[in-house]
Amino acid sequence: MTKHHYMGPLFTDFYELTMAAGYFDQKRVEMATFSVFIRNYAAKRDYFVAAGLEDVLYELKNSCFSKNDIRYLQKSGLFSEKFLEYLKKFRFSGEVVAMPEGTIFFPDEPLLEITAPLIEAQVFETFILNTLGFQTMIATKAARCIHAADGRPLIDFALRRAQGTDAGIKVARGTYIAGFQATSNVLAGKIFDIPLSGTMAHSYVTAFDNEQQAFSAYARTFPQSSVFLIDTYDVLEGARNAVRVGLEMQRRGESLIGVRLDSGDMADLSCKVRRILDDAHLYDVKIFASSGFDEFKIADVIQKGAKIDAFGVGTKMGVSADSPYLDIVYKMVHFKDKHIRKLSPGKVTLAGRKQVFRRVDSTGSFLEDIIGVRKENISGAIPLLNKVMGKGELIQPCPPLTAIRENFRKNFAGLDEKYKASGSGALFPVRLSTRLKALQDQKTVAAPAEGDN
Amino acid sequence: MTKHHYMGPLFTDFYELTMAAGYFDQKRVEMATFSVFIRNYAAKRDYFVAAGLEDVLYELKNSCFSKNDIRYLQKSGLFSEKFLEYLKKFRFSGEVVAMPEGTIFFPDEPLLEITAPLIEAQVFETFILNTLGFQTMIATKAARCIHAADGRPLIDFALRRAQGTDAGIKVARGTYIAGFQATSNVLAGKIFDIPLSGTMAHSYVTAFDNEQQAFSAYARTFPQSSVFLIDTYDVLEGARNAVRVGLEMQRRGESLIGVRLDSGDMADLSCKVRRILDDAHLYDVKIFASSGFDEFKIADVIQKGAKIDAFGVGTKMGVSADSPYLDIVYKMVHFKDKHIRKLSPGKVTLAGRKQVFRRVDSTGSFLEDIIGVRKENISGAIPLLNKVMGKGELIQPCPPLTAIRENFRKNFAGLDEKYKASGSGALFPVRLSTRLKALQDQKTVAAPAEGDN
Repeated sequence: MTKHHYMGPLFTDFYELTMAAGYFDQKRVEMATFSVFIRNYAAKRDYFVAAGLEDVLYELKNSCFSKNDIRYLQKSGLFSEKFLEYLKKFRFSGEVVAMPEGTIFFPDEPLLEITAPLIEAQVFETFILNTLGFQTMIATKAARCIHAADGRPLIDFALRRAQGTDAGIKVARGTYIAGFQATSNVLAGKIFDIPLSGTMAHSYVTAFDNEQQAFSAYARTFPQSSVFLIDTYDVLEGARNAVRVGLEMQRRGESLIGVRLDSGDMADLSCKVRRILDDAHLYDVKIFASSGFDEFKIADVIQKGAKIDAFGVGTKMGVSADSPYLDIVYKMVHFKDKHIRKLSPGKVTLAGRKQVFRRVDSTGSFLEDIIGVRKENISGAIPLLNKVMGKGELIQPCPPLTAIRENFRKNFAGLDEKYKASGSGALFPVRLSTRLKALQDQKTVAAPAEGDN
Repeated sequence: MTKHHYMGPLFTDFYELTMAAGYFDQKRVEMATFSVFIRNYAAKRDYFVAAGLEDVLYELKNSCFSKNDIRYLQKSGLFSEKFLEYLKKFRFSGEVVAMPEGTIFFPDEPLLEITAPLIEAQVFETFILNTLGFQTMIATKAARCIHAADGRPLIDFALRRAQGTDAGIKVARGTYIAGFQATSNVLAGKIFDIPLSGTMAHSYVTAFDNEQQAFSAYARTFPQSSVFLIDTYDVLEGARNAVRVGLEMQRRGESLIGVRLDSGDMADLSCKVRRILDDAHLYDVKIFASSGFDEFKIADVIQKGAKIDAFGVGTKMGVSADSPYLDIVYKMVHFKDKHIRKLSPGKVTLAGRKQVFRRVDSTGSFLEDIIGVRKENISGAIPLLNKVMGKGELIQPCPPLTAIRENFRKNFAGLDEKYKASGSGALFPVRLSTRLKALQDQKTVAAPAEGDN
């Protein structure tokens, strides 16, 4: 497993290839522009955090049909030899504009637009939706957790119940972008250079004759990095055992980092445990908490006065449990010389190649977004879509993860609190530019009604 | 991308490695047995379908720490040279018993038990939970869709909004196990030899000057395998265009397979479209439907009298949207000479190495399950856990996917209708054997309270 896991052009819906064969027969090979955007706010989502671009660019740059792929398609008996010959030389030769990862955006705003010969643009739809959709969903969920934690560090614990192996790795990356401090995921730590966190499970405690013995043994192996899990038998007795071992460690010149709670009434227990630690003058020993946390439970326990210094955030964040998919779509907005526009009531697809402009004040606070036409200039506003690929080649190397994390931090600081509070109902102002509006009124081709595929 | 994607032993939570280092220091290397089971029924789930075993066995068989992995762990400064030396030679040498993929099971029943030296058994916890949890969740969701469709073919359309790349591939495999007829996922089709399905998207229709032209062009490329998407502009007009092109095809000796609906009131529209097709004597042209289908929507449109011949089932099935994770756990049940049992109220972990016995009648219908001790014999009952790995080696090759599919089919036929009806509240009878009950009453070590990690 490396930073990128190449999937190849067969990672696609079959209809992308049958349509491609149709286009090939009809010589419909003109340039098309497809726009990727989220059509609606998902449940309780008031903003989104762009993520997944690096994987998309890697795939576009490297994708080609292997001999084995061609043989597989040939076996279906559906494709002409001429089309299969075409696929042998198939490479992505188009242009991509996109928001940098970590950018905050809103429904209807394209986070990526791709312009390429029709077949090339069509074939990557599935990979692009899968990749941008999932990673954006997770970075968004993680940002919501960060906001709820109000400065307390968060650690990604999602790997074991993520939806598959790739999801587990990408959750670690997405949470780090959104400001998580560390991950439990060793492979992601290695691949992306994310700090690791983790000490012991209940099974460790039960593998010893008693809890204090388990803590003592652990401290001998990890004299400077121990966090004791104290809820295996009884939390308060566990806290007292942690104190006993913590004081022994102190006498040896070592230091206990913290204790972890993994069950029960977190607000109540954390206060009692804090008292036990403080009574022993172990003021620096931190209280970690895990088990069922997401933005809702984090906010709830903080509001109830929990004395928790850091949270392990797992399953519910890692599958975005309250909203496990996004209404992300890939729509043709320009083909040959025509702007393509959807006319279905309530489901506006904005025609034309676009740019997203953001107006900010002198402190960097977001004022409004304006969706405009690609070549427009809106004075004083920052264009969010950058050209990242031309003629199938990267314009510049992808930024390091730390830079993406910093981009998110700055973006998040610019978004007013009222748009971060879950379900506040406050919608960040997004409008269309006069030019983009005018373009919508031109004679256009109606685009599809909606569905899964 | 091949059938198996090796992740390696770093695909784990960091605490598995810190615990391993602790065990290594303490020479706690005796044999441990861990049991994998689902603790509770998930929302509206009345049974589960075991899946993911093949990936687990592949990983166990091949897992070793590369030099690169060791260097990465060394850099953390947390691990002794002796422990790192141990990891260099680390291989899984244990035993695995498991239910064959496709087997139907219930909460508290182990679907897999692993017995190995403590460190080896501990390190794979994360991979095993990730793999069995996700694939079982999807096979279960897919089985529910199959039941709702009542014999109508289903096609997997989930790839574009699955949670990451691995999830997309595994959804195709899991749905095929549960009896889906085909997938849109080309790569999964190639890897697992699953039939492919897919024809055209709305963007295809809009890339032509009008709908009839788009259908005609498509039919010329695919004279024997065309399904026209008829809802781009107006469904009934789309149906009439499909009839025009379908009749042309008939005159040329070709045949139109079907039309697809992807939006609107499916029950009403499908009846109207059926009438239009029948009026043109195109009785064999099938009606496919997609867009937002899961077991609930399938049951709903069928109940309303929809004339739909086959369903494309996408996002909501592919992320198991109504229940996007399982309460699957990996618990120590035996260590050295001790049975380990959880004592927390309401969260019984059954101590001891186990077997699951199923009693069936002469027609194969399930009567009851009995969770017993591993070495027990219950006359007339079928043991569901088979030894699949010994001393780290496969006992026999994993069965082909078609055999797994057949195993599911037989299992599903054995499960009474009343347990398949969503949320019926009927619980299949599962009891403990007398011997397993007696073992629970012996002096045991209390095992952990619960949490994410």
